[in-house]
Order: sequence, then structure tokens, then C-alpha cells
Amino acid sequence: MSVGLAPPAKIHPIDGIKLSTAAAGIRYQGRDDLVLIGINAQASVAAVFTQNKFRAAPVEICVRHLEKANPRYLIINAGNANAGTGQLGYVKAEKVIQALALALDVDAEQILPFSTGVIGELLDADKVIQKIPFLVTDLQADAWISAAQAIMTTDTVAKAFSQVIALSIGEVRISGMAKGSGMIQPNMATMLAYIGTDLEIEQTVLQQIFTAAIDHSFNSITVDGDTSTNDACVLIATGTSGITFQNLPADDKNKFIHALQEIMQQLAQAIVRDGEGASKFVSVKVTEAGSVEQARKVAFAVANSPLVKTALAASDPNWGRIMAAAGNAQDLTLDLAKASLDINAVSIWKQGALNSTYTEEAGKHAMLKDEIVMHINLGLGTNDATIWTTDLTHEYIRINAEYRS
Amino acid sequence: MSVGLAPPAKIHPIDGIKLSTAAAGIRYQGRDDLVLIGINAQASVAAVFTQNKFRAAPVEICVRHLEKANPRYLIINAGNANAGTGQLGYVKAEKVIQALALALDVDAEQILPFSTGVIGELLDADKVIQKIPFLVTDLQADAWISAAQAIMTTDTVAKAFSQVIALSIGEVRISGMAKGSGMIQPNMATMLAYIGTDLEIEQTVLQQIFTAAIDHSFNSITVDGDTSTNDACVLIATGTSGITFQNLPADDKNKFIHALQEIMQQLAQAIVRDGEGASKFVSVKVTEAGSVEQARKVAFAVANSPLVKTALAASDPNWGRIMAAAGNAQDLTLDLAKASLDINAVSIWKQGALNSTYTEEAGKHAMLKDEIVMHINLGLGTNDATIWTTDLTHEYIRINAEYRS
Repeated sequence: MSVGLAPPAKIHPIDGIKLSTAAAGIRYQGRDDLVLIGINAQASVAAVFTQNKFRAAPVEICVRHLEKANPRYLIINAGNANAGTGQLGYVKAEKVIQALALALDVDAEQILPFSTGVIGELLDADKVIQKIPFLVTDLQADAWISAAQAIMTTDTVAKAFSQVIALSIGEVRISGMAKGSGMIQPNMATMLAYIGTDLEIEQTVLQQIFTAAIDHSFNSITVDGDTSTNDACVLIATGTSGITFQNLPADDKNKFIHALQEIMQQLAQAIVRDGEGASKFVSVKVTEAGSVEQARKVAFAVANSPLVKTALAASDPNWGRIMAAAGNAQDLTLDLAKASLDINAVSIWKQGALNSTYTEEAGKHAMLKDEIVMHINLGLGTNDATIWTTDLTHEYIRINAEYRS
Repeated sequence: MSVGLAPPAKIHPIDGIKLSTAAAGIRYQGRDDLVLIGINAQASVAAVFTQNKFRAAPVEICVRHLEKANPRYLIINAGNANAGTGQLGYVKAEKVIQALALALDVDAEQILPFSTGVIGELLDADKVIQKIPFLVTDLQADAWISAAQAIMTTDTVAKAFSQVIALSIGEVRISGMAKGSGMIQPNMATMLAYIGTDLEIEQTVLQQIFTAAIDHSFNSITVDGDTSTNDACVLIATGTSGITFQNLPADDKNKFIHALQEIMQQLAQAIVRDGEGASKFVSVKVTEAGSVEQARKVAFAVANSPLVKTALAASDPNWGRIMAAAGNAQDLTLDLAKASLDINAVSIWKQGALNSTYTEEAGKHAMLKDEIVMHINLGLGTNDATIWTTDLTHEYIRINAEYRS
């Protein structure tokens, strides 16, 4: 079950990035669960990792390797998170890396490992290593969709988006893929995302642009308020287009940044649309807040409220719960006497009181849609924020109660 | 469905407090939904109200009245929260209060109104007012249990506890009742609690003792992380025992404070045991934390995690989710490399690594119990905190999706 999410269409290859997939049988049978990504030598790589304090071994290794060398290869497995596996987890990850380094003739530090899946079970490194020869020989530019499929866990649809951006001096491309459908909350989610562009961008600038775009994409979604041990997001700029970000006119720079943010929002929203058990895609839009922080606090308080989420699942325009959830935001300057609430453009609450023209019928009708926009206008300032989330359904519980069995 | 929760046993009357109940048919048919509590003139009253920014009209009125006068009467209705009802909500509450003041011959400020139930629907004041003559004439000392029954909403069991405390110079009594089963998170819950004692305590001291006891009871529980618009907790000290707190030896003072805290914990835990759809009663105990704040942050992060709660519902010893939820606490000084985890005394994680003696069988066995103690030892300091919560079941979603229909 997913909300308005189609399988990926055409994903443009990015010159300098090659991908291959294999079926290692780590957890899943009869499907690929392993991805190798090769990156050209002159590429810049930016990355953001989970802020969870219980980080998985591969995440710690990524952080360490990125400090030491420019990455040339990324190895990703699905089905096992290699998290909460203590010292042995590191040993398993290192074993895979060493075998890869040997096969690819690069330093171990030039390889970044990623794992997603069940926490607390040891990764069978040998199953991965067995597939290395195949992965290495099979690398190809046009394998984004099969890679997006191979990194899926509880996902029901593969997630990949792509754009060709016409700049004043030529074209550049952005392509990206992601996985994730539960345990999604900013900072970050059980989520892996890999985005490539053939623009040339200096690493520190790339990291800045990436971090800012993450605030408006992967850090603006929530399915269940939980964050994961393994979340990682990587942006690769191969530079193969011959176009350099630094030399672009301001308009072109903005055009690129905007396109990057759009792709990242599409990926982030796809994760929410595929949220575990989701039957609705919900945008919680807070406007006229005193600060962006306040707008985000209120939006997350509403988006994470189980009472709001169960009302959404029942298509119940229970605006009392929405306002109570907003009031639940830990924000001392909040004053809901000035607040207004619309659901899909039906005005329910207006400057601190129920709109006299509002009817339950109109509210119910608005809530029946698959796509819900809850707009809370705080009437306190000029800042806004939008958070994307889903409803909370029986299916969510079924998936998460049965995940390991 | 409730976990290990019996209907109230003997509740000792508190000299100076009288209660009556009536069926006003506000929402429920065929049961009482209205309570009047009368308090003797020399009583001290302490109160704590919701910190939700979307407070109901009766809460605002209580706060205002408490500033102006000593309360003599409390009027409570179930079925309608009179919240999110704007200016009209105040009008309805004031109408009830005026009628009561007339019937009881007291100032309006000496009456405190409380409402619980659906948010956003206007309270039918006339239905309440119709019952005033009956409520006024029917006041009696021994009606705690019928009052506890009359304030129930989604509760399945009435909640009341009582103790007689033998002090060195005589006996004093504490009796209390509460309602609540969902929307429960500290600061506070959809929860009403009324506690009485015949000890004499000066108001400012009473408020201090009460606020401290709330931290260890009503502010240490969570069902779904939401707080409500209407939560209120009232402690009445009638002084009718002739024993004065200020004159007691330290041991007696502590004995009283301990008993009060115990009653309040019983009431708070009863709310969790009756949590919407709960099939387990879960104590999340965090020890050896660097600070009480850290202990509470980690305990709440675990207790509120939907992934932990769904694993609990499935009796799945998914310790990876528990540790990941702990790692999700927004606490920069947290270091889970030193942490240990026991579930019902089965050691799973030990100082940063899976305990080599742990088996999934032992974990599964421990998780099958109705009463779960998750003990997380952070190994960072000497502080601790315990939070009580429930699992997240299909039943929770059914109750909350259908509440208004």
C-alpha cells in the first residue's frame, strides 16, 4: 500500500557513476539485496548520517573513511542493518571492505559501507563477499532503477527520480534513489539515499548545499517519530559535465540548487508515501509562525501525534485533536488564540474560534481525500515550515509487529 | 481491556469532602456523567493543570477562580471536554457555575468546573443545570467509587485508591480517584484526578508537596505521547483530622508524603494499565544516568517509540529497536557504548554489546509477560527515573479511529 506513488520512470545515467546489483540472500530470497556503486576519481562526495546515538558499525566506518580519503566505491546491503552488533559488527563490515579493496585495487578507506534491515543480527560477510566478482564486473551507468529495487526493505515501491537541468551554458543532470518506509523522522530516518550529478562542485560547497537541502527534504518528513541507527544520505558530484558550479551565474546556481532540492523532496516524499501502512499522504503546513523553529515544532507536534494520525486513518475531521496536538508543541511563545486551521482548503478554525460557516460534512468530505493538506496559520509572524507525514493504520501495527517473525 | 487492574476496593471517606453523581445524558446514556464535590470551608486546595497551549474553557476558569477564592465546590462532567469551543465555551461553563452558585449560596469564584470528553463540541449547559437540585441534595461522604465511575470516558475500569496512615499522634486518611486512558503524556494527560486528605496543611506547602509528587506519578506516565486540553489534578486537605502537617515530626511528614505519592502513583499507573488498547503494562526504568533529566529523556524516548510499542504488542524482544529508541533521545551526552539492557531481569545488552549468554528464546519468554520491566543502565552517573507506559495495539487504533463516530 502506498499513496500516489508510481514506480520510477526514466532515470538518467550520470557520467562517472556506475552501479551493479546482486542477490546475496542475506535475508530476502529471489531478489537482489546488494548494490555496488563506483565513482570516478575526481568526484566530490558529501554525506549526512543519522544523529541517533546508537549508530551502526557501517555508519561509524563511513564517517572515519570520509575523513581519510575520497570515496571511490559504495557497497550497500539490504536485509541486515549490522547495527547493535558490537565489535563483531565492525569485524564483519571490515571483512567485506577488505575483500572489495582487493578486488577493486583501491584503499579500504576509499570504500563506504551501508547496511539497512533488521537491527541486532550479525551480517553474514561471506554471502556478500561471494558476490563481489559479479558486482565488480557488472558495473554499468544505466542501473539506477535496479539499484533502487535492491536496497528496498519494507518498501513496496522503488524510489528514484531524475532531472536534466538546462543551464545557460549547457545541461547537467541529477539522478537519485532512496529507500525507507518506516522509522522515519528527521535526523534522519531508516533511510538511505544516493544522489548523483555530473556538475563539478568543490566538496565543502557541495556539503553546504546538501545539508541545506536536507533540512527541506529528508529532515522534513516523519512516519512514526523514530530515527534509525543506519540512516545515510550521499551526494556525488562527478564533474563529468565539464560545467563548474563556482563559475555559474547566480541564476544557474539557484536553478541547480532548486532542482537538487526538488529531487530530494521527491525522494523524501516518496518515503512518506510508502510509509508503513500509510493510506494518506499528509502535508502539515504551518505559516505565519514567530520563527522557523516554532513552525517546525508545531508541524512536527501535529504530524507525530498518534491521535491525529488515527483520526486521519478514519478520515475523521477531528480538528480538536489537531489543535490540541499543536498546543502540545513545547513552545512557550505559542498563542493559539490567533491560530487558524484549514484542511484541504476547508476553513475550520479561524483566528482562535471555530469558523461559523464550517460544517462537519465539509470537514468529512475534505478528509476523505488521499492527499491531505493541514494548514495551520499561527498569526504570530512571517515564518513557515511544511512537514510531510502519513496516517497511523492497523497495517502499520501489523507490519511492525511482524517484522522479525 | 486493561492490564492487572481491579475495580476499586474500599475507599475511605474523607471528613470534609462530600460527593454526589447524576446522569445528565451529556454524551453517554444509562450511566452517571456528572459529579459534584463539596469541600469544607477551612480546607486547603492545591491544583495542577495541563501545559497544553490549547486549554479548555473550564481549565482557564479554574485558574482564574483559584487566584480569587478558596474553592468550596467542584463540578465535573464527562462526555464533553468543552475545549476548542471559543467564547461560547466560556459562556456555557459560566452558565453552569452561576446556577450552581445560586443553588449552593456561594460565590461563583468558589466553584471549579472540570470537563472531559470530546473536544470541539458545545457543552449543553442546560442538561447539567437540570441535575443541580439532585446533585446538591445528594452530597454524601461515601460516594468516591460512584464518582470515579461517573467521570470515566474511554476508561474501562473506575480508578480509586485509599490509605489510612498511622502517624505517631493519630491516623490520617488519603483517598483519590482519577480518570484517563489515552492522550496520556506528562504535562499532563487527558486525565482528571481528585485526591483528598483529612490532614491539615497550609496551602503553599500543600502545593509544593503536590507538585513534587506529580513529577513521580502523573508526569511519569505516557500512553501515546499526546497531552490534553483539559487535564487537571486537585489535592484537597480538609484538616478535619485535627492533625497539622507543620507540627508533625520529620518521620511522620515523610510517611505522609510517601503515602500521598503512593496513592498518586497507583492512580497514574491505573491510567496506564487502562491505556487505550493496552495489552501490557511496561515500566521503562533508566538507571546510572548522568542526570535525572537524561534518565527521563531516554525513558520517554523508549516509552513513546511506536516501533518499541508495536514490538511490545507482538511480545517481540526486539532490543535493537529499544536501543535505537534510546539513541533517539535528544541528549548530546548520551553514550550507549556503556549501556546495558535487561527485560524482566533477562540480561540482553551488557555494557555496549550483546550479552553472550543471551538467547532469543529467553528474550521471547520474558516478553510474553503482561508486566514488562525494561531496565536500561546507562553507566554514566548515579541518577534514575522510571516511566510507565503500554504497548501499541490494533485496539488502540480502533478506539481512536472510532471515538467520534
